[in-house]
Amino acid sequence: MASPLDRLVDHLAKLPGIGRKTATRLAFHILKMPQEDAQALARSIDDMRAQLKLCSVCCYLTDHDPCSFCRDARRDPALICIVAQPQDVVAFERAGAFRGRYHVLHGVLSPLDGIGPDDLKISALARRLDEAKRANQPVQEIIIATSPNVEGDATAVYLARLLQPLVPRISRIASGVPIGGEVEYADGVTLGRALSARRDM
Amino acid sequence: MASPLDRLVDHLAKLPGIGRKTATRLAFHILKMPQEDAQALARSIDDMRAQLKLCSVCCYLTDHDPCSFCRDARRDPALICIVAQPQDVVAFERAGAFRGRYHVLHGVLSPLDGIGPDDLKISALARRLDEAKRANQPVQEIIIATSPNVEGDATAVYLARLLQPLVPRISRIASGVPIGGEVEYADGVTLGRALSARRDM
Repeated sequence: MASPLDRLVDHLAKLPGIGRKTATRLAFHILKMPQEDAQALARSIDDMRAQLKLCSVCCYLTDHDPCSFCRDARRDPALICIVAQPQDVVAFERAGAFRGRYHVLHGVLSPLDGIGPDDLKISALARRLDEAKRANQPVQEIIIATSPNVEGDATAVYLARLLQPLVPRISRIASGVPIGGEVEYADGVTLGRALSARRDM
Repeated sequence: MASPLDRLVDHLAKLPGIGRKTATRLAFHILKMPQEDAQALARSIDDMRAQLKLCSVCCYLTDHDPCSFCRDARRDPALICIVAQPQDVVAFERAGAFRGRYHVLHGVLSPLDGIGPDDLKISALARRLDEAKRANQPVQEIIIATSPNVEGDATAVYLARLLQPLVPRISRIASGVPIGGEVEYADGVTLGRALSARRDM
């Protein structure tokens, strides 16, 4: 039977981007941690799994429904940013550049994987827009922030058509050469998009 | 108060080599895992901490005393490889190049950090050599496999002097340009060592 150390290494090595060498290093580190820190790590895994639910408004993950973004009166409820995954919310918040609300689709359209509109949180979004309108606080703009790849773009086009009759303005995040990136190393598709989406200076 | 997700990210980000971005990615992955896998990960942390003890013979970590290396009759008990850390045993076993027994010091001599001979598992080693001799199965060779840096080398010199009267042969692992490495990128000290330890072809 595998030793307790090997079992932890096995479990850690299943995580994305963690090979067996890194898993071994992490396991030995956890072994040398103060007992309460190691317990807190194990507890936090269980707690997160037990306590997190989807926000009934925006479908982000939260332990308080509605989530802190939906409860934050300082965030503009008339501006909604649609993202594919909860981690995209984290990325936008890390950037600190958005002061509206979110809506998390929990996926993108992917016919090859059998993921259609009904598998995404689109009806929750429609309901949300409808409730905002009936409360006389209609949503003014929706920014579609799915990733600029085949599936993300297809999802954006689908949503834009669907939402056009319901919201005055539908926009899409810009794509192009990343800030700090180099034109020399940008791929052709990105450079093409950066050219066609060029702006006057 | 921090959300359960943030707490797990905080705990993961304390692990070596794991920044906040990676911790966030791991946390979201753990969130999407099957419930039993996530629980098994948390359990394996607790189990490892609760079940692992030091082997009374070689001071490696084990849940069965003596450890599997010390119980393995196919491993030569007359050949002992001294390593600084338990993870060094894992590295040697991964290489699959050693068929003797181990002895884990749990550290190296480091006067600046206040770590002297009494802080390492040296008396356990002396006892082990003594017991082997009295059982008429004396240890024939000790390979000192501490890392080839200042503290590892100092520890090796100290141990060699201490063990010289007790064991017929004391050896030190070779150091030089790593296999697959390039001379162009090797540091000067390594190149100097590779030169002085050159072998006839």
